[in-house]
Amino acid sequence: MRPSGRQTHEMRGVSIETGFTRHAEGSCLISMGETRVLCTASVEERVPPFLRNTGLGWVTAEYGMLPRATHTRGRREAAAGKQSGRTQEIQRLIGRSLRAGVDRVALGERQITIDCDVIQADGGTRCASITGAWVALRLAVNKLMKAGDIITDPLTDHVAAVSCGLYAGQPVLDLDYAEDSEAGTDANFVMTGSGGLIEVQGSAEGAPFSRNALNTLMDLAEVGVAELVAAQKAATS
Amino acid sequence: MRPSGRQTHEMRGVSIETGFTRHAEGSCLISMGETRVLCTASVEERVPPFLRNTGLGWVTAEYGMLPRATHTRGRREAAAGKQSGRTQEIQRLIGRSLRAGVDRVALGERQITIDCDVIQADGGTRCASITGAWVALRLAVNKLMKAGDIITDPLTDHVAAVSCGLYAGQPVLDLDYAEDSEAGTDANFVMTGSGGLIEVQGSAEGAPFSRNALNTLMDLAEVGVAELVAAQKAATS
Amino acid sequence: MRPSGRQTHEMRGVSIETGFTRHAEGSCLISMGETRVLCTASVEERVPPFLRNTGLGWVTAEYGMLPRATHTRGRREAAAGKQSGRTQEIQRLIGRSLRAGVDRVALGERQITIDCDVIQADGGTRCASITGAWVALRLAVNKLMKAGDIITDPLTDHVAAVSCGLYAGQPVLDLDYAEDSEAGTDANFVMTGSGGLIEVQGSAEGAPFSRNALNTLMDLAEVGVAELVAAQKAATS
Amino acid sequence: MRPSGRQTHEMRGVSIETGFTRHAEGSCLISMGETRVLCTASVEERVPPFLRNTGLGWVTAEYGMLPRATHTRGRREAAAGKQSGRTQEIQRLIGRSLRAGVDRVALGERQITIDCDVIQADGGTRCASITGAWVALRLAVNKLMKAGDIITDPLTDHVAAVSCGLYAGQPVLDLDYAEDSEAGTDANFVMTGSGGLIEVQGSAEGAPFSRNALNTLMDLAEVGVAELVAAQKAATS
Amino acid sequence: MRPSGRQTHEMRGVSIETGFTRHAEGSCLISMGETRVLCTASVEERVPPFLRNTGLGWVTAEYGMLPRATHTRGRREAAAGKQSGRTQEIQRLIGRSLRAGVDRVALGERQITIDCDVIQADGGTRCASITGAWVALRLAVNKLMKAGDIITDPLTDHVAAVSCGLYAGQPVLDLDYAEDSEAGTDANFVMTGSGGLIEVQGSAEGAPFSRNALNTLMDLAEVGVAELVAAQKAATS
Amino acid sequence: MRPSGRQTHEMRGVSIETGFTRHAEGSCLISMGETRVLCTASVEERVPPFLRNTGLGWVTAEYGMLPRATHTRGRREAAAGKQSGRTQEIQRLIGRSLRAGVDRVALGERQITIDCDVIQADGGTRCASITGAWVALRLAVNKLMKAGDIITDPLTDHVAAVSCGLYAGQPVLDLDYAEDSEAGTDANFVMTGSGGLIEVQGSAEGAPFSRNALNTLMDLAEVGVAELVAAQKAATS
Repeated sequence: MRPSGRQTHEMRGVSIETGFTRHAEGSCLISMGETRVLCTASVEERVPPFLRNTGLGWVTAEYGMLPRATHTRGRREAAAGKQSGRTQEIQRLIGRSLRAGVDRVALGERQITIDCDVIQADGGTRCASITGAWVALRLAVNKLMKAGDIITDPLTDHVAAVSCGLYAGQPVLDLDYAEDSEAGTDANFVMTGSGGLIEVQGSAEGAPFSRNALNTLMDLAEVGVAELVAAQKAATS
Repeated sequence: MRPSGRQTHEMRGVSIETGFTRHAEGSCLISMGETRVLCTASVEERVPPFLRNTGLGWVTAEYGMLPRATHTRGRREAAAGKQSGRTQEIQRLIGRSLRAGVDRVALGERQITIDCDVIQADGGTRCASITGAWVALRLAVNKLMKAGDIITDPLTDHVAAVSCGLYAGQPVLDLDYAEDSEAGTDANFVMTGSGGLIEVQGSAEGAPFSRNALNTLMDLAEVGVAELVAAQKAATS
Repeated sequence: MRPSGRQTHEMRGVSIETGFTRHAEGSCLISMGETRVLCTASVEERVPPFLRNTGLGWVTAEYGMLPRATHTRGRREAAAGKQSGRTQEIQRLIGRSLRAGVDRVALGERQITIDCDVIQADGGTRCASITGAWVALRLAVNKLMKAGDIITDPLTDHVAAVSCGLYAGQPVLDLDYAEDSEAGTDANFVMTGSGGLIEVQGSAEGAPFSRNALNTLMDLAEVGVAELVAAQKAATS
Repeated sequence: MRPSGRQTHEMRGVSIETGFTRHAEGSCLISMGETRVLCTASVEERVPPFLRNTGLGWVTAEYGMLPRATHTRGRREAAAGKQSGRTQEIQRLIGRSLRAGVDRVALGERQITIDCDVIQADGGTRCASITGAWVALRLAVNKLMKAGDIITDPLTDHVAAVSCGLYAGQPVLDLDYAEDSEAGTDANFVMTGSGGLIEVQGSAEGAPFSRNALNTLMDLAEVGVAELVAAQKAATS
Repeated sequence: MRPSGRQTHEMRGVSIETGFTRHAEGSCLISMGETRVLCTASVEERVPPFLRNTGLGWVTAEYGMLPRATHTRGRREAAAGKQSGRTQEIQRLIGRSLRAGVDRVALGERQITIDCDVIQADGGTRCASITGAWVALRLAVNKLMKAGDIITDPLTDHVAAVSCGLYAGQPVLDLDYAEDSEAGTDANFVMTGSGGLIEVQGSAEGAPFSRNALNTLMDLAEVGVAELVAAQKAATS
Repeated sequence: MRPSGRQTHEMRGVSIETGFTRHAEGSCLISMGETRVLCTASVEERVPPFLRNTGLGWVTAEYGMLPRATHTRGRREAAAGKQSGRTQEIQRLIGRSLRAGVDRVALGERQITIDCDVIQADGGTRCASITGAWVALRLAVNKLMKAGDIITDPLTDHVAAVSCGLYAGQPVLDLDYAEDSEAGTDANFVMTGSGGLIEVQGSAEGAPFSRNALNTLMDLAEVGVAELVAAQKAATS
């Protein structure tokens, strides 16, 4: 039934290639099927003004999509002179999601910026970004700990995300572009390794959806996030 | 327990004053406690380029906050030269929510823009905006139908929104600013008059939350939205 | 002869509702007929860089018009990414006018920003803004004096403004939109409570005007401003 | 008494060098003392959208100041990414003033843009710009008439401008920078060759001013404008 | 002598991986040592306004650098709201260089946009971009020819680029970052496959350089470009 | 053969009028034929952040073109809200060229900004800007030395620039607009008074060019720059 021939509860193939670029303190290229996002973590020994002298650290994210990551070329945001509402919404979501898994006292007064740049898009770029961003963050924190700059691990749990939706009336896991553009309801779930919820965002794309449907999508998401956390563990251990 | 002395399942006082401004095709001032939002609906007999000659209409929204709607003065976005990520996120949400309750074929090839401008903020401005925006939209559509420009009512159901959250560990309905700034989890629910879900957005502000907690918040939201829909009915009948 | 049926020297009904919003140190909603402007005063204990350590205070203003304050919807300046020349011209005028009635030594090294946001427009928004702005400023200063932060009253006199013009060749007081859009000459007068001139701005909209005509308009303005000052007194005493 | 040693009713030396640049349809370099402004008129055979197919022409103006036209270098507006409020206010004034002396039916459906760029500033740049702009406009219109593109002269009268003010309590004509920065009241008068008023803009820079003072300044302005009109005639005949 | 241990006339390892992304009509990832640039070609069946109905095609380029492509994180240009002067200079160079090798009549009235996005920077990103951009262009043109949309090959020759410079007084080929940041003179040469010059850009970074030095650098460039053209051939045949 | 009737190795008439404006520390109006550029040097006793407390000075440049400097009116960059890529490229070139002739230790920790504003354009504006900018810089430095603010002359040599190109297949010196718009190859040479090269920028505008052609153009440039340096000497001695 699914365009890709996948089962309703079947994820796309996930791969996480760490160390994809050499300058960043942590980096990976995450692929969820044909969606590929480069995630880099940059450590800076300073924090935004509102945190100065508080002892608290900060984790933030920026998101971008290369102009031809998509089926037809999109306008370069730097040329347009501003980031779209969609871009801002996504990067705010990534930053908020990561911070939910960070002990900012243990991080200390420094900032880690995660850049998520979509090299190729086939649906689910915000979820892939969150999952990959956590890996880049993990690697950067490992480096800081190894160097003795951080003593207590500030990462309290894994953070990963997956989208689910109603495609042709059926709840399916991990929407790709073909499904996403036709889905009746689309929901993104950001969860911790231990199954806690960080963000739930469900949208009706046509008819409203029921609590029942939302629950079914959440069941699927739990399956998917568990798989993603396993991939994160494999990539960072 | 709540700063306002309200019960956990108790909404703030809601009032909707229709016809607050005279030029707009539909308008109201919605108050949810001390939060007040002016919503106006503007009808234009043209649609965005991607809809030309499709026979489909469009409903969109813009959101703004007056500089001193808040406790301390915020910078005017027009002076800053751009809308913040938060503003864009909110106005995208309002537009998407309203469209979920609109039959765009019945609307015909015209655009209705809803402007939601926060006169005074005390938490829950995005939810108040959605609830008020629907009233402005309803009034504008009534006017178009009365004039014979639209035959079939394009509004398929009421659309209203409320926020719930965990305050001091307790699920509470309709967060005000004092609660919102302290809440552990914050969730916005956009629902139809018949109880369908349009948007669910839950965010952990510290510790992750459980599916159970989300379900309890949704129970509260159903109570709240029913009350809001009743207020919409009273205001527009 | 006037579209509204008013006498040539007759003002529209003026009302000033103080305390319209709760967060601002001073606020009012001023109505001049169907023109309604929300004015809020925000006190900040800092001044622009060019005044630091001079002991002098600063009063400034910003002006905005809600998108559907007008007959047809105007583009939101925050979305357009800049304030129009008209907006900047008006807010510069408001700030300059208010400062002409302020003893900046007595104010002390603090800034008061007046936001004038037009809720509904029917001509004369800049004059209504100035008259209302002074009320908001008066209330904020009262609050500072009551708290003992200011000892000597820094407001040296009332400041109020009215527009006059040649409509159908006749000098008339307090132009509304129907008159303004047809007026041959349009002049704004900002005056003090004791009748001194702060700003005079007269523009020919077609044929040039004579010194005689300007004098007649000024006669009308003196009548109008006296009425506005009385309304300010009633609102702030 | 005046820093320059001029009489109270004495203008600075005025010179108008026509044809200062070769590409523009009309151009001049106007000097009022040390203030020098390059004015060019550009004719385009199209009008802004709101005038299409109306048969009416348009005259508009843009104003700029070279970064080091002033005592200390100002930031280049092109580098800052926007025109200041002052710049916009001035260029709106120039355009409005010129249009008051143009028969837009006789001009025909074309646009003439006058660029006023301040090469060196010593007070009174907006007045010099208006006076010089009219000369550039006159020359461009002459060229159009000579070519037979325009039959009836669309310029109904001369347009020229001068500033007056209260300096050390005395009314003086044609303020230079040293006076302007100290003046108690500053007024700009735009007038026609036959003495009609187009724009009057008077501002108190400290204490309010009286109607009497305004009248005295207007007397001076009439003297000054007559001299400027004579210079315009000499330059364009 | 060189930090990398390379001979003065020795290039870094070059690799060109075609088809790196799937949506673009042509794409490659070019690596010159540690510098890696993703180049994609996007075909659109329309041209810029100045070319409409001329029968001529257009080739243009955009350039970007991911924020953490460099040793320390650079600000994202989309967030800054504009492209830097350096970025604009480079993308203009890439476009101009490519067009020098294109028969725009044979291309027909369509536009090909090449996006060059630097994934990792270690010096020479503009030269790597040009060399890789040509490959992406070649692949896109091949696709158009295969589809019968273009009959005559519009690419008249290979286009490739290399930088040379005086490092520690010695002329060296293909500067990497360590050399580039210390080089006394830096020159970029864009050449065709048959050895013609398209662009020569030499800059003294300290002391001026002699014609003799420039000639020696050009000798090196000829060696380097020949190697790059061979790599282009291998990648596209 | 040349549209102007000049010999292939013949420059346009060059004139440099120093002290063209009175506020700048150094200024000149340089004319190369009909191309006229106003160059002003502004001294500020502060440096950009990256140079603070290094003892090093900075020389930078900004470039602009008045809207009607050209045959048809160009859009004002300040109104457009940004500087074009061409403008940024040129001002970067001017700054870089000047710095190559400055001993920044001798200059001391201060900044000199050169503004080059094109009053009238007829080809070669960037070269005229560089040649004139050096004169403005020389005059400003003379003033600083005379005042004892600088002891050792920081200007190590003259800096001047000329463009050459292949016009109708023939190498010609100092392209004017008629030639530039038709030239097959266009090259700009920035050189010192003693003949050293600072910048070489050659571009094929159609067919690639040969090393031989580049050498011939360089021969012409040496002739031209010698003449420009003589004019600089005459103007500043």
